[in-house]
Amino acid sequence: MFKRSLKVLSNQPINRVKPSPTIIQPLPNTTTTTTIINNNITNKFEKMTKKSMTIDNICQNVRNAQYAVRGELVIRAEAISHQLQKQRAEGTQLLPFEEIVYCNIGNPQQLKQKPLTYFRQVVSLVECPDLLDNPYIEKIYPADVITRAREILGSINNTTGAYSNSQGISLVLRSVADFIERRDGHKADPSEIFLTDGASVGVQRILKLLIKDRSDGILIPIPQYPLYSATIELYNGSQLGYLLNEEKGWSLEITELERSYNDAVAKGINPRALVIINPGNPTGQCLDRANMEEIVKFCLEKNVVLLADEVYQENVYVKETKPFISFKKVVKDMGGDYADLEMVSFHSVSKGFVGECGKRGGYMELNGVTPDIKSEIYKLASIGLCPNVIGQLVVDLMVRPPTAGEQSHDLYIKERDTIYESLKKRANLLTNALNNLEGVTCNTSEGAMYAFPQVRLPAKAVEYANSIGKAPDAYYCIQLLEATGICVVPGSGFGQKDGTWHFRTTFLPSEEAIEGVCKRIADFHQSFMNKYK
Amino acid sequence: MFKRSLKVLSNQPINRVKPSPTIIQPLPNTTTTTTIINNNITNKFEKMTKKSMTIDNICQNVRNAQYAVRGELVIRAEAISHQLQKQRAEGTQLLPFEEIVYCNIGNPQQLKQKPLTYFRQVVSLVECPDLLDNPYIEKIYPADVITRAREILGSINNTTGAYSNSQGISLVLRSVADFIERRDGHKADPSEIFLTDGASVGVQRILKLLIKDRSDGILIPIPQYPLYSATIELYNGSQLGYLLNEEKGWSLEITELERSYNDAVAKGINPRALVIINPGNPTGQCLDRANMEEIVKFCLEKNVVLLADEVYQENVYVKETKPFISFKKVVKDMGGDYADLEMVSFHSVSKGFVGECGKRGGYMELNGVTPDIKSEIYKLASIGLCPNVIGQLVVDLMVRPPTAGEQSHDLYIKERDTIYESLKKRANLLTNALNNLEGVTCNTSEGAMYAFPQVRLPAKAVEYANSIGKAPDAYYCIQLLEATGICVVPGSGFGQKDGTWHFRTTFLPSEEAIEGVCKRIADFHQSFMNKYK
Repeated sequence: MFKRSLKVLSNQPINRVKPSPTIIQPLPNTTTTTTIINNNITNKFEKMTKKSMTIDNICQNVRNAQYAVRGELVIRAEAISHQLQKQRAEGTQLLPFEEIVYCNIGNPQQLKQKPLTYFRQVVSLVECPDLLDNPYIEKIYPADVITRAREILGSINNTTGAYSNSQGISLVLRSVADFIERRDGHKADPSEIFLTDGASVGVQRILKLLIKDRSDGILIPIPQYPLYSATIELYNGSQLGYLLNEEKGWSLEITELERSYNDAVAKGINPRALVIINPGNPTGQCLDRANMEEIVKFCLEKNVVLLADEVYQENVYVKETKPFISFKKVVKDMGGDYADLEMVSFHSVSKGFVGECGKRGGYMELNGVTPDIKSEIYKLASIGLCPNVIGQLVVDLMVRPPTAGEQSHDLYIKERDTIYESLKKRANLLTNALNNLEGVTCNTSEGAMYAFPQVRLPAKAVEYANSIGKAPDAYYCIQLLEATGICVVPGSGFGQKDGTWHFRTTFLPSEEAIEGVCKRIADFHQSFMNKYK
Repeated sequence: MFKRSLKVLSNQPINRVKPSPTIIQPLPNTTTTTTIINNNITNKFEKMTKKSMTIDNICQNVRNAQYAVRGELVIRAEAISHQLQKQRAEGTQLLPFEEIVYCNIGNPQQLKQKPLTYFRQVVSLVECPDLLDNPYIEKIYPADVITRAREILGSINNTTGAYSNSQGISLVLRSVADFIERRDGHKADPSEIFLTDGASVGVQRILKLLIKDRSDGILIPIPQYPLYSATIELYNGSQLGYLLNEEKGWSLEITELERSYNDAVAKGINPRALVIINPGNPTGQCLDRANMEEIVKFCLEKNVVLLADEVYQENVYVKETKPFISFKKVVKDMGGDYADLEMVSFHSVSKGFVGECGKRGGYMELNGVTPDIKSEIYKLASIGLCPNVIGQLVVDLMVRPPTAGEQSHDLYIKERDTIYESLKKRANLLTNALNNLEGVTCNTSEGAMYAFPQVRLPAKAVEYANSIGKAPDAYYCIQLLEATGICVVPGSGFGQKDGTWHFRTTFLPSEEAIEGVCKRIADFHQSFMNKYK
């Protein structure tokens, strides 16, 4: 190796070909060569220096991974947000809107959803155990909050400041198991549960375990939540997309699973797991039991692990016709060999009516996994030491809220139901508004927090976007952002059928705000369509 | 693929050859074959079923990774702890001790270190903003706590429950930059700082970025903190060990760095980064400036990235002779090309006098990294959404404690100094006690939270351990645990010179407890030595 003699000016972005945003086919690794970066700029004060890390010599899986939910659109939105702050400070008005509306991510409290009072009171008290001896304490916290805080503190050596067991705090593992038992009517074992910093960490650990190299494939829905595509790429696996049927309400068809599976096998790729997101993200559909049973049969027959992403289990707006059923319940109800299907189910405190994204709390439950493999999962957890303790405690509160008769019960129920009813109302409102737009169709959001409308873009718009090297839906979304301040994510970030264009938007703006958001989208859309007609 | 027809009984551990605990040489990947697990047990109710995930077909890097700090010893300690609970409940006494003393990990609050009052008061209030309107609030929290809570809430949309920016909350990034500027006397830029869930997550992200495959190597000290060896293995890189010189107080010698570097190059391995842990873990030594300058020169000359693990920067007990100096300060003081050395520095809220391990808060600062590479780091952070918000806020409190004149200042200083002085006292006490044991030598712990004594085990003990397939130091540690309840980690978990045996113990038991711990270790040691003489 030779001494550095060239230096990149830190504010000079290095030109490079952007990797294609495709998410179904793994990208070939760029040949790794150590190149001297030459940005054609010299400065008498700064010599050009050869850098150790260049875009060509780092891990190319990192380079190839894409995560649009916080990608280009959001980075641009944050830049505009800074501009708006400056504008406000200076009293000028150059942009046609007052603030960015972040509809790119399911982040309810960012859009003013109030946290559940009981949860925050308990956490507040647990953080400061000295308060328990304060004479005013009963004037500040309800009695059941104080009782709960004492119970929790008793289980964590009186402090939230120690690493817990890597699998999680025993008390919380027990609470989660009890919750699953109540929900499913089947036994749950605390030793099969791992608490995690949000569901994402759990998903990433299991994918790490499953993937050796490109010869291992993971079946993922298209469209899908890009945590999956990004992580599969990071771990150098193969994405095996199966298309959801948009014409039939984003339904999951076993024939399409079979097709994707067989295609992979024909290419010498071993399908290791099937990812199911139920309710769907970004697509919002809910599975019915018959469909779930077919999926379970498919997994057992093909010997693939079922990864059940059920983080939106409380976000179901069609409870009467399609109540949420967990895959755990389905396999146990089916019984026999099905009951021992290898499966990992994920849940989170970030979604539902809890919406505590910033807490990074979640859990995963193993089913039918051998002790040997469980030890490996434990080891992966231990390398990360432990999930953050407050996140663990919020999991406890989520699965064990106040019960009837406790002081906080009525308020909890009221807050919970208000959030739920409002989400349901906003889901309908947004979907209806989208369906009224020229060339736009949008399936009903039966669950989750998103609408995923298809936009039939005019040929001229597609042509123009291509000419400037943008995916047409990304171009549409950037134009929407610049015109309205509304930040959504292009469908290409989730995957979509060739030749179709979508975007994902949450319906999380408050009830007061959402009609305005719909109106601004409608106005923008009309002018965009007119422009490119 | 064929249908599952055999099932492993879930409580039957599968016999397998344990991977060797060596951490310097990467282990060869086991040939990946799908095998039918046969545990020779049949049961008329349960057929043997072929499992999708077997120890041979999962990612072998996961299987090979070792993390002794929470490994075999700790799993055994937790089992004994359950036994002790049962004993207490039943009023029997079968074990010769009352409780497990966890000296395996730097987890101060588990061993009764009190959290800093101000930190917890602020967090408590921030969690429950409604309290700010409570008429009793000023009777419960000091005025500066209320002011600080209002400031923080103003910067996070009044809630800890929303995802923040993936890089971290702006206010906290600014606080960290100010802290670094005060510490080093050189500019720091908030946009070069990333908040992380503890330092571990940051280390893992950077290693992911650097490592393509086995042809990329990372220089790590031997002994080292096994986060490094485990992560390098997980990402399929090569561990390039450089030995610290135990005879010279675990000093770092450039000739040894050169040797390791050259060995790697001769094998066709490209050394990508140099890990320095200062103060040392598990070895407790502190670097002086001359040595640090040599290291910086080495990195620039060899074009390797410097990874500066400085999580123990507040745990320095020789401040007069070897005050903590950050590598950031050293490179900026050196100036010229050195000032732009590619470097990532790590810090954490888990150590020092803060000791908030359960909060999982930390940060990393980039230096000399190009914008392109920074974008990739940002993308990796965004796939994980954001670090937990409370952990971020504890970082803010760590780097921006109460200042002179504020109500909480005196108490903060008192608590801080009490913890620091006590740690220093306990470090000396433990090291002295260890040096009094037959065949044991232990360098002074100049910093961090650990002693790493060398134990000259009798030949008969080594022989016996080998005969039962245990590393001799692991055997010693297990015997210590079973006899005394004291849980330490064998040197083989950190790496050590061939033919030497060590263990790592924290000096975190309280002042009341530590003399008892020393005495129990001494008694055990004497009887162990007598037994195998």
